[in-house]
Amino acid sequence: MLAAAVAWGPGKPLSVEEVEVAPPGRLEVRVKVFVTSICHTDLSAWKGENEQQSKFPRILGHEAAGVVESVGDGVEDLAPGDHVVPIFTGECGACAYCASAKTNLCKTYRINPLKSTMVSDGGTRFSVVDGSGVRRPVYHFLNTSTFAEYTVLDAACTVKINSNASLEKMSLLSCCISTGVGAAWNTANVSKGSTVAVFGLGSVGLAVAEGARIRGASRIIGIDIYPEKYTKGKEMGITDFINSMTCGKPVHEVIREMTDGGVDYSFECTGINDVLREAFVSTHDGWGLTVVLGIHATPKMMPLHPMELFDGRRITGCVFGDFKGKSELPELVTSA
Amino acid sequence: MLAAAVAWGPGKPLSVEEVEVAPPGRLEVRVKVFVTSICHTDLSAWKGENEQQSKFPRILGHEAAGVVESVGDGVEDLAPGDHVVPIFTGECGACAYCASAKTNLCKTYRINPLKSTMVSDGGTRFSVVDGSGVRRPVYHFLNTSTFAEYTVLDAACTVKINSNASLEKMSLLSCCISTGVGAAWNTANVSKGSTVAVFGLGSVGLAVAEGARIRGASRIIGIDIYPEKYTKGKEMGITDFINSMTCGKPVHEVIREMTDGGVDYSFECTGINDVLREAFVSTHDGWGLTVVLGIHATPKMMPLHPMELFDGRRITGCVFGDFKGKSELPELVTSA
Repeated sequence: MLAAAVAWGPGKPLSVEEVEVAPPGRLEVRVKVFVTSICHTDLSAWKGENEQQSKFPRILGHEAAGVVESVGDGVEDLAPGDHVVPIFTGECGACAYCASAKTNLCKTYRINPLKSTMVSDGGTRFSVVDGSGVRRPVYHFLNTSTFAEYTVLDAACTVKINSNASLEKMSLLSCCISTGVGAAWNTANVSKGSTVAVFGLGSVGLAVAEGARIRGASRIIGIDIYPEKYTKGKEMGITDFINSMTCGKPVHEVIREMTDGGVDYSFECTGINDVLREAFVSTHDGWGLTVVLGIHATPKMMPLHPMELFDGRRITGCVFGDFKGKSELPELVTSA
Repeated sequence: MLAAAVAWGPGKPLSVEEVEVAPPGRLEVRVKVFVTSICHTDLSAWKGENEQQSKFPRILGHEAAGVVESVGDGVEDLAPGDHVVPIFTGECGACAYCASAKTNLCKTYRINPLKSTMVSDGGTRFSVVDGSGVRRPVYHFLNTSTFAEYTVLDAACTVKINSNASLEKMSLLSCCISTGVGAAWNTANVSKGSTVAVFGLGSVGLAVAEGARIRGASRIIGIDIYPEKYTKGKEMGITDFINSMTCGKPVHEVIREMTDGGVDYSFECTGINDVLREAFVSTHDGWGLTVVLGIHATPKMMPLHPMELFDGRRITGCVFGDFKGKSELPELVTSA
């Protein structure tokens, strides 16, 4: 029997339970999880904020790194002992989406917060004995369920990485680093000398800054309500900080004054609708691009008017930094 | 004295008046208007629908073609006798916007529905004697004011075209044709074999279809409430027609069934908010792009949820087909 942190219901404390982890099914792998981190999306799912059909009991967690323990039928690109990171949005490599250069959303294995079972047979690979002595299934989360000693993943959601890399660091590659750096590199394609605003300096926002720094952005403005985040932010390339609670006027006005009309790129990393609007209008008219990374609660609509699109500002969403995980993540990892 | 159709107030019938047309000021030209057409944007301005500060009396009209009669100081690229079309969104050729490949919005001469006077001195070039015998200024509209025998334009809003071309046909180049064809070519960059939906088959929508047809789109679906528009539409490449009043379910469902999940590109040419939403969700997830061309009344917000951007559908506005008018229109004109 193996341990896992089980969520029994929305907002209920996770409890570490003995769970049974079934062998991997067809096109699946079983992974020993060495490291897992916590992302705000785990928190939202735990609270039941963004899901209409959340299933419990459930094992949350999606940012992790581990080692393959066994592989199911049909798995050809992974073997026991491989160092891997799970990806919450998978890549089958064969569908029309995977064949398109325009998207990283796989038809079958893309992120789906409503999904709670495995693709191959519609079942779960976890079970637990509940308080009344009955063994019952424990549902999966985001294709990953990494708050567990062992988890079962679709091979399409499992990326083999260089075995010399630190698993502790690589855990961040499975969500925040890829999402943030990829948003700067792939989604926005930040160019040398450009100006950038990052709204929300959590790990995703800091990764955006790092991606923009590597691309040679000339100015990277961080916006947050906690000024201490600027300290860490400077290491990631943030050149200016705006405390939105104390700056005395709308943030977009401050940014437009600082940048002669607005930044070239803004990144919304908070999931707050009013911040999304500030991010949008902080960009320069004519060519500004806003990338939305934050998870926004239903049912609020976007606070933008259609005619505002005619000022030449654009807005786009971004999942996992627009990386195709299986194809593109391995080359990001050397050893560290 | 020369004639012009003067709008005296919102919704009041235009009356043909004797107006005085002053000589062109610095960087301006005076143009004899040979042909002018009517666009829905003239109608909206006449009704006062979309403008908070509309000024009257005013000369509307922006889709036209004519011949330069005289040029003001500093005009070097135009001379009397040149055949020209006015452009409602100009190109100075010198500002940061004109230098950018990402936008066609000139800093000084971009479209501005609130503007009613000339850039050079803030005055008007038209005057009329009103009912009480007083001579008063007549305001300009959209940098153009073509419902007049003669008009004065900024040289930045005046495009010289091949003098062998039919002025009657070229009139359409100054708004609907450039907007629609350019939306397909420049904004969406419609690719060979792709699928397209055009919402609203007025002249802009038909021009979008023609642009998509020239690019080799495999299927061009037209949507309108008037089925007779399909007849004209077929000549412009429309392969399928949906009557949104009689199709029995939401248009996006019909389109998704017809196209295995949605079209690659949709174009919103109606200015109706509900249609904008249908256009957005009619595209294929992962890579669909919606181009907004219709003029939307204030103050309704976009009927899209931020999380819908995470399905990989994108939306963007488009002014004048993203053509830089002075640089790019002349090469579209041979003789006809």
